Amino acid sequence: MSNDRYVVGVDFGTLSGRALVVRVSDGAELGSAVYEYPHAVVTDALPAGVALPPEWALQVPQDYREVLRVAVPQAVRAAAVDPAAVVGIATDFTACTVLPTTADGTPLCELPAYADRPHAYVKLWRHHAAQGQADRINELARRRGEAWLPRYGGLISSEWEFAKALQVLEEDPEVYAATERWVEAADWIVWQLCGSYVRNACTAGYKGIRQDGRYPSPEFLAALAPGFARFVVDKLEHPIGQLGEVAGRLTAQAAAWTGLPEGIAVAVGNIDAHVTAPAAQATEPGQLVAIMGTSTCHVMSSTVLREVPGMCGVVDGGIVPGLWGYEAGQSGVGDIFGWFTRTGVPAAYEAEATERGISVHELLTERAAGQAVGEHGLVALDWHSGNRSVLVDHELSGVVVGQTLATRPEDTYRALLEATAFGTRVILETFRDSGVPVSEVIVAGGLTRNRLLMQIYADVTRMPLSVLASEQGPALGAAIHAAVAAGAYPDITTAAKAMGRVARAAYLPDEERAAAYDELFAEYLTLHDYFGRGTNPVMKRLKEIRRSAMAAAGRKEN
Amino acid sequence: MSNDRYVVGVDFGTLSGRALVVRVSDGAELGSAVYEYPHAVVTDALPAGVALPPEWALQVPQDYREVLRVAVPQAVRAAAVDPAAVVGIATDFTACTVLPTTADGTPLCELPAYADRPHAYVKLWRHHAAQGQADRINELARRRGEAWLPRYGGLISSEWEFAKALQVLEEDPEVYAATERWVEAADWIVWQLCGSYVRNACTAGYKGIRQDGRYPSPEFLAALAPGFARFVVDKLEHPIGQLGEVAGRLTAQAAAWTGLPEGIAVAVGNIDAHVTAPAAQATEPGQLVAIMGTSTCHVMSSTVLREVPGMCGVVDGGIVPGLWGYEAGQSGVGDIFGWFTRTGVPAAYEAEATERGISVHELLTERAAGQAVGEHGLVALDWHSGNRSVLVDHELSGVVVGQTLATRPEDTYRALLEATAFGTRVILETFRDSGVPVSEVIVAGGLTRNRLLMQIYADVTRMPLSVLASEQGPALGAAIHAAVAAGAYPDITTAAKAMGRVARAAYLPDEERAAAYDELFAEYLTLHDYFGRGTNPVMKRLKEIRRSAMAAAGRKEN
Repeated sequence: MSNDRYVVGVDFGTLSGRALVVRVSDGAELGSAVYEYPHAVVTDALPAGVALPPEWALQVPQDYREVLRVAVPQAVRAAAVDPAAVVGIATDFTACTVLPTTADGTPLCELPAYADRPHAYVKLWRHHAAQGQADRINELARRRGEAWLPRYGGLISSEWEFAKALQVLEEDPEVYAATERWVEAADWIVWQLCGSYVRNACTAGYKGIRQDGRYPSPEFLAALAPGFARFVVDKLEHPIGQLGEVAGRLTAQAAAWTGLPEGIAVAVGNIDAHVTAPAAQATEPGQLVAIMGTSTCHVMSSTVLREVPGMCGVVDGGIVPGLWGYEAGQSGVGDIFGWFTRTGVPAAYEAEATERGISVHELLTERAAGQAVGEHGLVALDWHSGNRSVLVDHELSGVVVGQTLATRPEDTYRALLEATAFGTRVILETFRDSGVPVSEVIVAGGLTRNRLLMQIYADVTRMPLSVLASEQGPALGAAIHAAVAAGAYPDITTAAKAMGRVARAAYLPDEERAAAYDELFAEYLTLHDYFGRGTNPVMKRLKEIRRSAMAAAGRKEN
Repeated sequence: MSNDRYVVGVDFGTLSGRALVVRVSDGAELGSAVYEYPHAVVTDALPAGVALPPEWALQVPQDYREVLRVAVPQAVRAAAVDPAAVVGIATDFTACTVLPTTADGTPLCELPAYADRPHAYVKLWRHHAAQGQADRINELARRRGEAWLPRYGGLISSEWEFAKALQVLEEDPEVYAATERWVEAADWIVWQLCGSYVRNACTAGYKGIRQDGRYPSPEFLAALAPGFARFVVDKLEHPIGQLGEVAGRLTAQAAAWTGLPEGIAVAVGNIDAHVTAPAAQATEPGQLVAIMGTSTCHVMSSTVLREVPGMCGVVDGGIVPGLWGYEAGQSGVGDIFGWFTRTGVPAAYEAEATERGISVHELLTERAAGQAVGEHGLVALDWHSGNRSVLVDHELSGVVVGQTLATRPEDTYRALLEATAFGTRVILETFRDSGVPVSEVIVAGGLTRNRLLMQIYADVTRMPLSVLASEQGPALGAAIHAAVAAGAYPDITTAAKAMGRVARAAYLPDEERAAAYDELFAEYLTLHDYFGRGTNPVMKRLKEIRRSAMAAAGRKEN
């Protein structure tokens, strides 16, 4: 035991940061601690009191440092290991979560001159107030036929670096002018740890429109807004670090914060979803990891570069160096189930769940689990939050077909579970049809607890389903990166084999159910194309009608 | 006052009979009484203990006589009128509710030899176990191009006289052989009152396939089943009475039951929906009455005979003598709202409704009423119980399009209200497009209490909505028939003008809302045709899949 070495992975989520101490030799998770951000998500008003418009979502960077100061030492104590035996630390972050800093990495919001300026703060991934800017970026890129656009399924998100930066320029030119670096929080936290700024390949590619070593051109940027022409050159461009590499060494100050030895390896930053791949031992080409929560993020490495319709992005070294990292997504999954459970289930169900000490989800799942495939007579489209992959259309919406007076809440619930599985199957088939093979599906995230859902996914996709066997996938993945950065393993794949954990083929497809689902999937596909590919754009028109009606009534969209 | 004369209308519903005493001169409703059938609807086992298969729904004829014995004298007492001043009585009945009797009108189930034979009892309108027989009738009629089929929108119902009789023949030939008359309950109760059997033109036409004075031919019947060839000749055919005519005079026995004077006029029988037309003063050509309850029945007279697609039936003198009576229907209306309210509304809503002492319907209506047209972003199809008019397809089912995570129960509720209004508009437009003008819409039934629903119907149809101003439309309509039979008025229309009551143009369409609804109706129509006219028969396939799945799992459809 005295020879054991350890690494720390720190997962920066939306509301809290989690530190996890892991043994280098086998990935054993020895202790963890969570620190909730005191400012959580800032949506209504700045700490200084300034009110925020709708769709804003900010964070306060000091909250992130506190995770290092509080959660890391707590986790080390909980693990009961000698801090001196910790050889590396790595982080992962939500993305695109981005902030303006000075050249030395000081967040503008920490300068007294800017403390009351909303645009000086961290823009959280779910800050959605730059939609206008994103629309213009997309429109211009389509018109100019920008080569990078197909790498993102034809659509740049309002959540990403360029749309958010353009919003700063147009709404607070002073803050924009004072911004010397436009930094992903994933890289900023690494900068805090090692004192040097390294831009990681993952966020630069997926969120920063870096493709083939280049960014959108000055001409493109100038066409968006004259003052934006030098954005890349002045504020964004920076040497790239590959995943698993050393970004630098733990500074004395960061050693003091964390209680870890000064000088240990600090790994290049990463995104929470993508770093889950090594935790699930899914770094080989064709191993698709679905991180299933309120939404689902799919990440997969491949040896080939193809333009797969409707991907969120394909990035060189986006998951592991040397391979093309593909990302796809389903905009709504768990949040659809949550919405239905909150708004569509009668009192008697809630009462029974309460009485039995289970959740309404569990009750509905239990009742739905006894059904044969197709028994509910329904087929649904899982587009309540739009459709990211493969239709890339946030104006789509949900559908349920087949309800009768005999339809019960558990019927609709099961139809919604199935709809998201059908959505996953569309993504898998699109990968294959585009020449990007998928050899295995590994699931991670909170929804893996629902065994019915998992079995439905296995049956619908007709593939064995492997399950990440850790409750702390991202933090474990970060710890694996830390071990690689510390030199304990030659590369991420080798480290993942030793330290990752997966229950291989935990759910096997049943051929009879799979055949029955083929019939329902055919119905889903017909409706998918009818509503989603322009035959009947009723959903867009309904949203337009809704917006007009609400505007005329003087109401904000809820 | 001493010169006032009175009539009694008796409305035989599904669970009870209601007697209403009405003043002849002005239709004033003076007193009423309800008698609940002791046997209600017999679905599980006969009174004698014999178990019934699924889909059966029987009644016990003695329950109907008890209405005469109990409710009629009670109503007369409640009205505080002199029984001697009552000049006529009329009845209306659910239909097709039909029973086998001997030549003197004795129900076979009242003969000890048949008391334990299910087929000897009254088959209530919603006995649905003759679907197989109905399917064969339709298939054969289509193949032979029977001229009467288009008069029924191309589809005979399993609820009607022929399907139910064929079921008796095939499942209990002895009972069939013992059946000397196959009698509508609407006529049987009149027979009980006046001692003579008169077959009314309304049920004979709508439920008995009587068209142009003829029934389906012996050749047709023989092709269905050899033993069925003489069904019309032996058991069904009988002299026809027109609506409002005298069927006979109250017998001594019926006078003893009811406490009414022997020898007063007994009117020809009628159907509850159709008799509502005179109560609503809607007997002129083009006045469409929508009786809105769990389902909606539309009745309208016209001078012209046209084959209107998807009608339930068109019958010479079906509503008033001398005009063509059209009947259309929406299979599900109030029962869709009821289903949603029972199964799709969360505990918090139920708690608020309870606390405020209102129904969940009222709460949802109140919340939905504040919305602008289209604000909910939804469009629904109202086919949870299939679609009668104009698609004539009971394999269709419900759809909701446009749900997002912001969709609330009141949004879906309002979309369902609107869907039924769109369904009504399709019927109105089909009448007009077929050359049968609709000049006015009058609504009746329990749903008229929902003011939001009424306003939506006015806005969606862009027509002023008149409302029957009586809570007891069918019984009032029957009383009007009684007055005509008693000779107090020359015809039903004249009597209706004096005795019926309607709030004319109680709801006026708002042009702005009507224009907004035009947009949503266009979406409804597109989906209506896509799902309902064969472009995508997904609903039929889902029902087929459901049936197979349930059969394989050994479960009965619920």
